Order: sequence, then C-alpha cells, then structure tokens
Amino acid sequence: MSSAEQPHVVIVGGGFGGVAAARALGKAPVRITLLDRRNHCLFQPLLYQVATAILAPGEIAPSVRQLVHKQRNTTVGLLEVTGIDLAGRRVLVNYVGDEMQSLPYDYLVLATGVQKSYFGHDEFAEFAPGLKSLEDATAVRARVLRAFEIAEMEIDPSRHRDLLTFVLVGAGPTGVELAGALVEMTRMTLKAEFRRIDPASARIILVEGGPRILPAFAEELSRKAADRLRRSGVEIRTGKHVERVDADGVVVDGERIVSRTVIWTAGVTPSPAGKWLAAPTDYAGRVNVEPDLTVPGLPNVFVVGDTAHFEQDGKPLPGVAQVALQQGRHAGRVIESRVAGRPAPPPFRYFDKGNLAVIGRNFAILESGRLRLTGFPAWCVWAAIHLAFLPAPGNRLMVMRQWVWTYFTRQLGSRLILERKDGR
Amino acid sequence: MSSAEQPHVVIVGGGFGGVAAARALGKAPVRITLLDRRNHCLFQPLLYQVATAILAPGEIAPSVRQLVHKQRNTTVGLLEVTGIDLAGRRVLVNYVGDEMQSLPYDYLVLATGVQKSYFGHDEFAEFAPGLKSLEDATAVRARVLRAFEIAEMEIDPSRHRDLLTFVLVGAGPTGVELAGALVEMTRMTLKAEFRRIDPASARIILVEGGPRILPAFAEELSRKAADRLRRSGVEIRTGKHVERVDADGVVVDGERIVSRTVIWTAGVTPSPAGKWLAAPTDYAGRVNVEPDLTVPGLPNVFVVGDTAHFEQDGKPLPGVAQVALQQGRHAGRVIESRVAGRPAPPPFRYFDKGNLAVIGRNFAILESGRLRLTGFPAWCVWAAIHLAFLPAPGNRLMVMRQWVWTYFTRQLGSRLILERKDGR
Repeated sequence: MSSAEQPHVVIVGGGFGGVAAARALGKAPVRITLLDRRNHCLFQPLLYQVATAILAPGEIAPSVRQLVHKQRNTTVGLLEVTGIDLAGRRVLVNYVGDEMQSLPYDYLVLATGVQKSYFGHDEFAEFAPGLKSLEDATAVRARVLRAFEIAEMEIDPSRHRDLLTFVLVGAGPTGVELAGALVEMTRMTLKAEFRRIDPASARIILVEGGPRILPAFAEELSRKAADRLRRSGVEIRTGKHVERVDADGVVVDGERIVSRTVIWTAGVTPSPAGKWLAAPTDYAGRVNVEPDLTVPGLPNVFVVGDTAHFEQDGKPLPGVAQVALQQGRHAGRVIESRVAGRPAPPPFRYFDKGNLAVIGRNFAILESGRLRLTGFPAWCVWAAIHLAFLPAPGNRLMVMRQWVWTYFTRQLGSRLILERKDGR
Repeated sequence: MSSAEQPHVVIVGGGFGGVAAARALGKAPVRITLLDRRNHCLFQPLLYQVATAILAPGEIAPSVRQLVHKQRNTTVGLLEVTGIDLAGRRVLVNYVGDEMQSLPYDYLVLATGVQKSYFGHDEFAEFAPGLKSLEDATAVRARVLRAFEIAEMEIDPSRHRDLLTFVLVGAGPTGVELAGALVEMTRMTLKAEFRRIDPASARIILVEGGPRILPAFAEELSRKAADRLRRSGVEIRTGKHVERVDADGVVVDGERIVSRTVIWTAGVTPSPAGKWLAAPTDYAGRVNVEPDLTVPGLPNVFVVGDTAHFEQDGKPLPGVAQVALQQGRHAGRVIESRVAGRPAPPPFRYFDKGNLAVIGRNFAILESGRLRLTGFPAWCVWAAIHLAFLPAPGNRLMVMRQWVWTYFTRQLGSRLILERKDGR
C-alpha cells in the first residue's frame, strides 16, 4: 500500500492528548496530520512557575514539531481549526496565510482542551488575566513584577499597599500553587532587591467560592494545605464570591479589596469541539464519549482529554494531564487495531496515579488511592513526577537545573518584562 | 554624613555602560539611582541567537535589579527618561504609573545606547523588523519559524520559494552572524522536521550597500568570512542598495526579490541624549565628550557608550559593548574621585581587546591589534569571551549548557512562536 493510499488520521490539538495519540500511531500504516494553532506543546501543570519567574516559557513548552519529528508518518501543521464537515469528512481550517482550506480525514481525534472562562463575566478579563497559555503566564509575570517596580518608584506610601496586594480568584490547584509560589517570591527571592519598599509586606489573598481550597482532594489534605499557606502568609477566604473585578481591584461579597493585580485562577470551559460535531455534551460543554472514546454515531471521530466527558465508576474523570495522555494513547490504539483489522482493545479505563499539589518549596500534598502524603516527601514525589512527564528530554534537564539553582540561590530564573506593542 | 546628604548619582540606562558605572561606585559614599525603561540588561552581541531560536530570551538578559542587588547604595527604577532640566539639575521621567515626575541629581551618567534606524525610511519598519531589543528578537524568531510553518501547509509549491527566501539588509556583525545562524538552522536543525518542504532549500540573501561585508574588519578577514558564508549557502550582494521594502519583499538596485521575511540588520541611531542636553553632537547625533567623558560645559554630566562620540588616535571609538563597559567604569571612577576630593584619574583611554564575528558553528574571525585569527581557534576565543562577559553567573551556566546541547544534538533551544494580542 503506497503512503498516499494509507488512511489519513487528523489529530487536532498538540497538547498531552494529541501528542499521545500521534505517538501511539507512530509505527502504524497511516498518514497522520497533527494540527495546532500554537507551535508548542504546553506543560500546563508548571505554568504557574513561569508566572512567578522561576522557569522560562521555553522550558515548559517544547515545539510540537520536535516532539514527533522522528515519526516519518506524521506531518505537523500550524493551523487553527474552525469546524468539521462531518458529511464530507473534512476538517475546516483557518490557514495561517489567511485562506480557508479543509483537510479530508479517515479518522479524526479531537484533543482540543479547555479555554479559560470568566463564567459569563468576560468584562473581568481586562483586569484579571487568567493562566491557561504561555502568553497568559508571561502577562501575569509582567504584571506581578511591574507592581513591585511601580511601588518602588511610588513616592506616596499610601499607595504601596494597593500596589502590593495580589488577589487570586479560585483555589483549585492553579490558584493554590500560584499563591504558594507568589508568597515565597515576595518573602524570599525579592526581599533584598528593593530599597524603598519591603516586598515581604505584600498581601496575597486567595478567594474561593466553595467551602474549602483544593476541593478535588480529601478534606484532611485540603486543610493541611490551607494551614501551610496561612503560615507562609497567604490570606485565604473561602465561601466568598467575587462580584466584581475592575481597575481598582475586586468586590468580594460586598467588600471592596483594593488591588492593582488580580489573577483569575478559577474557571475553564471546554473547546468548541461539541459545537463542531453538534454532539451531545454535558452541562459544561464536554462531549459525551463512548467507552472507546468515539462520539456516539460517529465511529471514526474520537474526543479525548479535557474536552471529553467520560464517566468511570459513576463519576466523570477530572480534567488533568494524565487523563488526556491516557485517552490520547487509547484513541491511537483503537485506530491502529481498526486499520490492522484486529479486534478492538478493551474499553478505556483511567488508571489514576493520584493527585498532587505543591505549596512553595518543600511542601506538597499527594493523594493516590488510599495513600495520603504531605510535606517534604510529597514534594519529592511531585518534583520527580513533573520532571518525568515533561515532554522533551532537553527540557527535563533545563527545568531540573533551574529548580536546583532557584532552590539554593533563591534567585529567580526568568523575570523578563517584555513589551508587546508590535502586535505579533 | 547621613545617606540622605550623600551626593546623588543618577545613571540612565541599564546596559553595559550604566551597570558598569553603578558597579564602579558600589562602595562609594554616594546614593545611586539606576534608571531604565526595561527591567533587563540586554547582552546585545547574542541577540541573533535568540532570533534563531538557539538561546531563550531570559538567558541573555538578567534583570538589572539582580545585577546590582548587593549594592546597598543603589536603587533601581523602571522609568522612562523624557528629558533633562539642566538648570534645575533634574532628570524628567515618565513615571510607569503615568505621572510625570523628576529626580534631582548631583552627578548624571547618560548611558542610553542606540535605537535601530531605517535611515529616514520608517515605512520599512512594518515589513522588516530590526534586531536591537528582545522584543525584536522574538518577533524575528516568530517570523522565521512561521515562514517554514506556512510553507509546510502551503499547497501551491510555487509559493514555497517566496516563503523560504530570507533577506537580511546590512552586513555588519549582526547581519553576518544572523545569516550564519540562519543558514545553519535551515541546513541542519530543521532539516528532518518537515515533510512537504525541504528547509535546506531556503535562500538567505545578505544585502550590503558598502563594497564588502564586515567593514570594521581587515579586508582579508572580511573576504574569508564572505567565503565561509557563501560555502554554507548564503547569497551575498555587496554594493547594492535597498530602495524599497514592502509586503512582497525588497527592491535592490531596481531588482525585485520576492520574500516574505525581510530583517533589518543595518542601521542604528543614538538615543536622544544629545537633544536632552542641547549639546554638540557628531553627524550621527552622538554627544561629543571631553577626555573625562563629561559634556563640555557640564562637568557633572557624563555620556558613555554608543551615544557618546569619543576620538582616540584620530578615530571615533566604535559602538561596541567593550567601549560602553570601559567608559561606564571610567565615569564611575571620575565621580568617586571627585566625591572623595582626590585628583581625577587620567583621561579615558579605550583598551581595544579586539573585534570578533562568528559565522555558524566552528568558524569565527578575530582581529586584535596585529593578531588575526580565523576558523575554529577564533571561534573558541569568541565563545570564551562571550561567556566571560555575560553579566550574571547563572546566565553563563545556562548559555554554556544550551550551546553544548545545541552543538551536539543540533536541536534548537527555544523556538516559541508567542502571540501578542494582549498588548502587554
């Protein structure tokens, strides 16, 4: 069979799910086209470290092209998908050069992830950047660093307090890990560098609508994490709702907190894959998938990762990297067996390696089955796992080097404030 | 003497000259305020390596604050200077928080460097980004990488040639080093990663108005560099003038070269320091300075580096990092001796350590006094010197690691295409 006659697998999304699907098909007799509108595969669990100037953007985001360049059957395309023509079996794309085109597919894997969501309050976006992309992370980094810079040059000391108040909205893993890194940055790394202000006087306020932080963890662990954050200096406000975000800060249950730096660590919403397919979704917009991860009635279309709704043991799987990775790999295997005419693999089942969150140096919480760890041992596990799952070996070395450096010198790794007036 | 009564030294510019001046005064009984509109000290000689994805932006740009944080007498301010009130001895600044303020000074050191110049053709800027700032370098990197991405997805092969034609305007060190790195990137690192295009087919055209490339070097060395570039695949066109730059490419002496990626490596113009001071300048706008680097008639105002015009042995000093560094240090020493009431140091004299340019891996040219080196020995000297002069020890390690990595794996270090729609 010549390569032009081989089935064409189009994978949309170069994150964990998409890359895992492509890799699972690396030796299969198929042609693969892997599409993403970004040229990099983002390791989202470490995004907060870019936002707090510990790691450089490139260290957590190898290029998608580089990740699969050894697979001769895979073509990578920097394209934005705008829809699916199900009848014609074509993916509609917004060509980088501005023309509309479409790509035919025999199998389609949608691994398009999530976007940040302001829960219907898009007007908050201007004042409270989120933390889902590298651009977000460098924007947050610039805002945080600039707040200290402005305060240092501010003559009126009454304005220091507003400048050095940081409000994080949402106490999931991103909010908690960011709060832990921020408080450490203000208490340790920046301490000796300013003359007129004391960076350690910065307030870091973590606001959460639910009754406790890190709701995905057991209550005991979430309480330990909260204790640790409070001892480091983070103010935690649970059961509080953010009613307003504007240039002066936030309003939380009627109370105004004046702050020049508000960061949105709360919500995400699935990509529009469900709309493209006109497929049934859950309340949040995630596509309900079959046990083999295909879409009901569309046996050649797979949805994996954060944008899929998959129930296991009566509960939907969480939107974490491990689910995306395992589902992407599974979709690849299903396609491979179909192409080879072999029986399908057993239905997808998520193997839960556990849940981890880190709070500053040396402290993490870990929950895996019945195992619960806190403190330094959990932190070691966290560091090992994150290094192991960084997608490229070069990045692993760099990140490890940077962590050791930051750990011992307490100096930040990458603290650029870049201007972006060129619009590119 | 209490610290408030100590003389106040304001240094404008956190590049080589400004940081060297601040460091020279690190133990002097003065208060220093070091101002820059950027938070980082840019190592410009390696900017072309960021543009070609070898190094990450943070690796060549430590924060100014970090570079001087051990000097308790030094305050760093992220401010943009807009002018000087000579009568009132105040520096006018554009406060980051949007208010106008001014800072009084007893001594003033202007180390404000150069900006890129399109020689009166500012309309070229839209189509041909320059290479003077980190933002420039990441913009060039994005354009170059995106050209390959667009070509890979382009169905009409007749457009591949235009997409893969890169024109560099200006064959000084920046143009030559960028050409060398680009040709290597297309011939080596990107080779195996594309399926529909052959990156090695890319044309790299270096256009120079003068009769030869690298005019600051001896003719023999400039010829060897040109030979090396040509053998690697670069097309060199000397004695040719760029008449037009637009969306379709360039017009060179009447000939249209169709290209989607034109990079301006030609001209620079001094900062407006001369205008601020209403001081006599040379034809280019550099401030003529006295043998002690002060401005004639303004004994408390020093101008150093690229924005100063200083003649030695009948020739103006070149605009290179070493001149800025040595002049900044000298200005600091003059101020220190005056504050201490000691006799002034002897007039400034530049110690020329030589001139170096690198062309790809393993090849450089070096000229120092009568010494002339080419090839691998010169390249070793180049690498050692650049590492030695990176301003922060952490960066030195990172850059060395990255070079070794790139050298042996032929993989690029930092190839992000970031979008900049948020305007920050």
